[in-house]
Amino acid sequence: MTIDLTHAQDTARVLTEALPYIRRFAGKTIVVKYGGNAMKDDTMIASFARDIVLMKLVGMNPVVVHGGGPQIGSHLEKLGKKSEFIQGMRVTDEETMDVVEMMLGGLVNKAVVAALNQQGGRAVGLTGKDGGLIRARRMRLDGHDLGQVGEVERIDPRVVTHLEAGGFIPVIAPVGVGEHGEAYNINADVAAGKLAAVLQAEKIIFLTNAPGVLSKRNEILTGLTVPQVEGLIADGTISGGMVPKVRYALDAVNSGVKSAHIIDGRLEHSVLLELFTDQGIGTLIKG
Amino acid sequence: MTIDLTHAQDTARVLTEALPYIRRFAGKTIVVKYGGNAMKDDTMIASFARDIVLMKLVGMNPVVVHGGGPQIGSHLEKLGKKSEFIQGMRVTDEETMDVVEMMLGGLVNKAVVAALNQQGGRAVGLTGKDGGLIRARRMRLDGHDLGQVGEVERIDPRVVTHLEAGGFIPVIAPVGVGEHGEAYNINADVAAGKLAAVLQAEKIIFLTNAPGVLSKRNEILTGLTVPQVEGLIADGTISGGMVPKVRYALDAVNSGVKSAHIIDGRLEHSVLLELFTDQGIGTLIKG
Amino acid sequence: MTIDLTHAQDTARVLTEALPYIRRFAGKTIVVKYGGNAMKDDTMIASFARDIVLMKLVGMNPVVVHGGGPQIGSHLEKLGKKSEFIQGMRVTDEETMDVVEMMLGGLVNKAVVAALNQQGGRAVGLTGKDGGLIRARRMRLDGHDLGQVGEVERIDPRVVTHLEAGGFIPVIAPVGVGEHGEAYNINADVAAGKLAAVLQAEKIIFLTNAPGVLSKRNEILTGLTVPQVEGLIADGTISGGMVPKVRYALDAVNSGVKSAHIIDGRLEHSVLLELFTDQGIGTLIKG
Amino acid sequence: MTIDLTHAQDTARVLTEALPYIRRFAGKTIVVKYGGNAMKDDTMIASFARDIVLMKLVGMNPVVVHGGGPQIGSHLEKLGKKSEFIQGMRVTDEETMDVVEMMLGGLVNKAVVAALNQQGGRAVGLTGKDGGLIRARRMRLDGHDLGQVGEVERIDPRVVTHLEAGGFIPVIAPVGVGEHGEAYNINADVAAGKLAAVLQAEKIIFLTNAPGVLSKRNEILTGLTVPQVEGLIADGTISGGMVPKVRYALDAVNSGVKSAHIIDGRLEHSVLLELFTDQGIGTLIKG
Amino acid sequence: MTIDLTHAQDTARVLTEALPYIRRFAGKTIVVKYGGNAMKDDTMIASFARDIVLMKLVGMNPVVVHGGGPQIGSHLEKLGKKSEFIQGMRVTDEETMDVVEMMLGGLVNKAVVAALNQQGGRAVGLTGKDGGLIRARRMRLDGHDLGQVGEVERIDPRVVTHLEAGGFIPVIAPVGVGEHGEAYNINADVAAGKLAAVLQAEKIIFLTNAPGVLSKRNEILTGLTVPQVEGLIADGTISGGMVPKVRYALDAVNSGVKSAHIIDGRLEHSVLLELFTDQGIGTLIKG
Amino acid sequence: MTIDLTHAQDTARVLTEALPYIRRFAGKTIVVKYGGNAMKDDTMIASFARDIVLMKLVGMNPVVVHGGGPQIGSHLEKLGKKSEFIQGMRVTDEETMDVVEMMLGGLVNKAVVAALNQQGGRAVGLTGKDGGLIRARRMRLDGHDLGQVGEVERIDPRVVTHLEAGGFIPVIAPVGVGEHGEAYNINADVAAGKLAAVLQAEKIIFLTNAPGVLSKRNEILTGLTVPQVEGLIADGTISGGMVPKVRYALDAVNSGVKSAHIIDGRLEHSVLLELFTDQGIGTLIKG
Repeated sequence: MTIDLTHAQDTARVLTEALPYIRRFAGKTIVVKYGGNAMKDDTMIASFARDIVLMKLVGMNPVVVHGGGPQIGSHLEKLGKKSEFIQGMRVTDEETMDVVEMMLGGLVNKAVVAALNQQGGRAVGLTGKDGGLIRARRMRLDGHDLGQVGEVERIDPRVVTHLEAGGFIPVIAPVGVGEHGEAYNINADVAAGKLAAVLQAEKIIFLTNAPGVLSKRNEILTGLTVPQVEGLIADGTISGGMVPKVRYALDAVNSGVKSAHIIDGRLEHSVLLELFTDQGIGTLIKG
Repeated sequence: MTIDLTHAQDTARVLTEALPYIRRFAGKTIVVKYGGNAMKDDTMIASFARDIVLMKLVGMNPVVVHGGGPQIGSHLEKLGKKSEFIQGMRVTDEETMDVVEMMLGGLVNKAVVAALNQQGGRAVGLTGKDGGLIRARRMRLDGHDLGQVGEVERIDPRVVTHLEAGGFIPVIAPVGVGEHGEAYNINADVAAGKLAAVLQAEKIIFLTNAPGVLSKRNEILTGLTVPQVEGLIADGTISGGMVPKVRYALDAVNSGVKSAHIIDGRLEHSVLLELFTDQGIGTLIKG
Repeated sequence: MTIDLTHAQDTARVLTEALPYIRRFAGKTIVVKYGGNAMKDDTMIASFARDIVLMKLVGMNPVVVHGGGPQIGSHLEKLGKKSEFIQGMRVTDEETMDVVEMMLGGLVNKAVVAALNQQGGRAVGLTGKDGGLIRARRMRLDGHDLGQVGEVERIDPRVVTHLEAGGFIPVIAPVGVGEHGEAYNINADVAAGKLAAVLQAEKIIFLTNAPGVLSKRNEILTGLTVPQVEGLIADGTISGGMVPKVRYALDAVNSGVKSAHIIDGRLEHSVLLELFTDQGIGTLIKG
Repeated sequence: MTIDLTHAQDTARVLTEALPYIRRFAGKTIVVKYGGNAMKDDTMIASFARDIVLMKLVGMNPVVVHGGGPQIGSHLEKLGKKSEFIQGMRVTDEETMDVVEMMLGGLVNKAVVAALNQQGGRAVGLTGKDGGLIRARRMRLDGHDLGQVGEVERIDPRVVTHLEAGGFIPVIAPVGVGEHGEAYNINADVAAGKLAAVLQAEKIIFLTNAPGVLSKRNEILTGLTVPQVEGLIADGTISGGMVPKVRYALDAVNSGVKSAHIIDGRLEHSVLLELFTDQGIGTLIKG
Repeated sequence: MTIDLTHAQDTARVLTEALPYIRRFAGKTIVVKYGGNAMKDDTMIASFARDIVLMKLVGMNPVVVHGGGPQIGSHLEKLGKKSEFIQGMRVTDEETMDVVEMMLGGLVNKAVVAALNQQGGRAVGLTGKDGGLIRARRMRLDGHDLGQVGEVERIDPRVVTHLEAGGFIPVIAPVGVGEHGEAYNINADVAAGKLAAVLQAEKIIFLTNAPGVLSKRNEILTGLTVPQVEGLIADGTISGGMVPKVRYALDAVNSGVKSAHIIDGRLEHSVLLELFTDQGIGTLIKG
Repeated sequence: MTIDLTHAQDTARVLTEALPYIRRFAGKTIVVKYGGNAMKDDTMIASFARDIVLMKLVGMNPVVVHGGGPQIGSHLEKLGKKSEFIQGMRVTDEETMDVVEMMLGGLVNKAVVAALNQQGGRAVGLTGKDGGLIRARRMRLDGHDLGQVGEVERIDPRVVTHLEAGGFIPVIAPVGVGEHGEAYNINADVAAGKLAAVLQAEKIIFLTNAPGVLSKRNEILTGLTVPQVEGLIADGTISGGMVPKVRYALDAVNSGVKSAHIIDGRLEHSVLLELFTDQGIGTLIKG
């Protein structure tokens, strides 16, 4: 047996660099929003799963909230049902709501759960119905009927904290439950943000399709304060689909979450790099 | 205010009659197999939910395992996909498996969860993937390829007992997980029986479409011992679809579950009547 | 076997009607004052015992405080000792105090304990001496020497809460203990009220010889607020022996007990009817 | 201020001599049978109480079982009722049983409890009815009807161990409870011995009217083994009322209690001297 | 066997006299400063150890802080190193600091630990480095360089309270740790006082070479209040080496320690006499 | 900000490679023998300390046993005392034993503790005297008087497990305690092995001055079974100072420790490399 000492020393160096981050986040809750675009193939899911399981093993409490827009759209197509969107939100009649619930709660959620368990985690999937986790009501939008699109009314985090305490990793599909037991389609970013606020999470990490918030010269902006972000929205630097995402990040930070991160979910092990390296990746918004 | 004393005394009598049963089953786990045919309308589901929540409130630990055959069939039809059955088992190709998982784990499971929570319970839905609950492998049937039909390899009950301990009611969809994270379609009666055995349940109750095991003169047979049941199968008294159900009941009883019950799920509050009245209902098989 | 389905469905209905009350009172302490007149024969005691044990089984924490005036009087007679009363209170010389203590703590208390245990409870009898539960001092009444009649100085509820936590039902005889270890004769209604206040009980229920507080036209009055009760005393509607009882109920409610109930102890299962039916029975005074 | 150093050093010496005994018995249960003759005046009771409270404070778990024969006899006299004895056992008709229960459970028990609490203990009095502690049945004696004289059928020690765990000192009156809730008069030595066996006590100490087991030359015998005691009974050295007492001590030792002690209850602080000095006092019987 | 009853009764009297003190100090932390002069021979150490172990056994939480000046001095001599003192503090260069640490933490500390364990205790030795117990910084003294003489910056008592909770007796050598891990020589009286303040101790006891604080007529003064002590310093009654000791006692009392005691460590069992007798010994300063 | 993605991906890869090892050793005790030669400068100590703290942070329970031969030798020289060795063991008269105890327990032990705490650990130093951890007796060697050289008689691991449970890292100097409280000089390899056996450790890692056990061609041998090691000793492959070290490793493995490792303590982060890489380093001996 020959030992490759250079490689070995690199290994040791990386591990010891991670040490202060492990210490800082031990016992802390970290909410990760995992978007439907970042789960396009099994390799991406497996890489994500390894990161989350590692977080749990070294003593953090990761909570995963996932989306699933592309998966829902594709199943609706199979059923020959046309998707309609108003201001980026899918109009959700009862039949569509059934598909949302089936797809998010039945298929996507369990795929994430199984991937985490394949990496040695003990994940448990939930929707907002389980343990009454996400109470929702019909969203009101002037002049439009969005059907079963809901807004979050109240979070009851007990099922999440009980699972955390038992060593399980909660994985949450953003389906809300109304006062009569009916299901609502909830925006996953919103659900993640509200949950992070109620859990007083240390961090919320949004995995997106972009490297982060970009300047007009396409550089990643980071270390942003709340007023700076407001300024960047006002002057148009932040625009398009990034605006609502940044708004949810601000809401979380304003509700007591220590920091929000918008990072590139397409990059392998992006969560780990954000957590365990000095430079981090993507855009950090500080409370 | 006038008090209707006759009514009042009836109330008191019923409650005190229930007392010895509450005492006997306090802290005991009772597995209830809830079939797809017994959830045909909201009234039936609500009645079932009230019974289960009452069990929990008076100190028992109900665990619900549900089916969903009719719901799966109807969605496959919508997708224009034909169902094929071999020896009563649905041949399950990968596309069908997706529908099974979506329907059982995403829709039926959450409908039961929501109904329990509407009655004041704190239910949490699980499939066999969650917490690695049901490990399965491909079922071998001579000369036939059933696809993703699975048999139970191992039960890891920790997620169930942890939820029980937290005051939650576990509701389980019979989807198993293979060694590579793939999903398997598991017979709900089998899953319920194995789970009851591993949990060393006090009782397992099968809600069916029949009043119980019937004699040749159509009387409900009850108080049956294991050898008596074997005799009734041998002489043809028990036949047809009741045979496998009775076999699963025997397996549970032979694995340490104290008693198995086959009762009529179409009868309102049938679970309650089985538990809280001197005569019980349906067929009891004793260990 | 034939099942009487009408009867069965009645049973189920009663049980599910009880469900919201079981839920509402789960884990709550409920103090029941059980008067000497309501324990006149074994049937009455057994009926009362069944009610209390059922409360415990479904998750409430009943605490029983009992009287025993008739039993004390009858033993004093045997000893050829004449009873003297001033303003409804028995003048209690030392010899009489011994009889009070023997009778309440030794005989009546243990009869109630044994009756509860016969119904499957695990009751433990206490007097105010046990664990220093009721510290008392000599009651001062202008111009009269009442001997060992005491007033409550302080309640140390630790022995009660420790027994509750162990699944036991505390049964308390109203004997107080003075600073030199001497015994005092305490009014049972007062002891029950003070104990309910210190335990921050959900309810206090007084079992009496009357159907409740009656209007001038002999109707049972209920849902009374504190000011309404004061009005009814002022205008003479409430009079005689009911006045002090109502006053103790008011004291309890004013000290944080959620509600006080004056109900007919002679009616079988009256406690159960008060707790588990929508209409309740007797007179309710709200905090 | 002048310090009397000789006295001070004596004090220190006594305390440090006690150290190994405190260590040896820490956390151990020690059952003390306290006879009716040793509670004749308040000084004797107070001295006994101080000893027991000291035991508790230094970490032992004392359990007191008391008698009360003289007190019962004297109350029966007051009621003009004649006592009859067969083979040393009081014939106990129902009226007598009521007096036994009142006197033991109501008066003597609470006097011991109050004395312990006066010394700073937290004592709780029990009879065999409380928590179903002592289950008894009618004693059979050839050709004689002893009425409610009972023999111990079963001990359920949970109420005792729960009170111990809460820091309370259990004080037990030897009244048993039959299968219908009826009371039985139990020999206090027997009750103490059985309880010590079930609790697997470290020691049982019988406080008696004699300095211990005496030789024919009136010397106290100690350090006796089981066979030696049998020999002393056989050769008549142990005779009269000491025989049954020694037999109960043997029973306890044969059931796993480490040692039994027969000591002089009339001697002030006799319990303390037995426990905390090298020589001990009275007669020790070893297991 | 003859029992010496006079002796026995003395024993009992001493033990019962100790009872109220055992009760009063149960569960309380008592810091004992044990000076280097009071550990001159094995008999003195054994006597001290017996006292401390007895405290632990009867339910108190003793914490020992020891000095070791003479032992350090004698080892420095062996090494041929001269000791220099400024204002009573040993100038501590790095080589001297090594000797301080070796001697206090390695030899004296373990001698005290071994002595406690010989008496049946379970002692664990600590320096201020263990568990980061005593964070220190270089002491500033105008115009002088004292080297590694330190002042206490912060106490982290977790290692002490964790050991206490496990039944261990913490024994602490007054070595502090600086921000770079370097060792500091801390005055033992100061360390004991600060620790008592952080632990909110019931008492701090300083074992010294004097019978206590003496009046000008050489009588021991006791029961002193804070202003009285200030007066005695101002008028010169307290002078010399007693002044700083009294100041540390005042600091402790002003920080919430209930009382401070300055007693004669040369007197056998002095700690016990202070704790368990009505008169106590030495000088008491009240909060 | 520019992200160096190659570097980032290397980081992620190393971390995820570590994942299975973190999982496998979570909650397991790992004893590390840290030799005096591996603590020659502050950099080496700091590197070792980072490794141990990382182990603790990711959920393992490291226990450090250290030596200190060179440090002892150098202090004895300062004192002008000559060291004598018999069969590799230092003849230890009482004066030498004092130096051993001072140096190991007072200086080396605290240097390791301080280094661990500088890296964010919470280390607590112990010798075998603390909590009676290592009971020893005089070692018998034919014809030689080794003085206070001891052999391990008994390990009482409670102080170690209690500190582990509190999140502390135990650091142990190999000083034993005899039945009269006297100190013994114990071989650190032996102490580590015995401790690992009593704690049923997952691994014992010996940090040495060699790369491991070498073949005759100077290749590192690894994956050795117990019989293979016996063979290598028999044929002379293992010789010299490596023989006793390998013997202690065998003893540990034969007593239930899962594996023993002999690795190069001079290599930076050698502990980490052994634990967290697929190839490991040095020589592994399997149970």
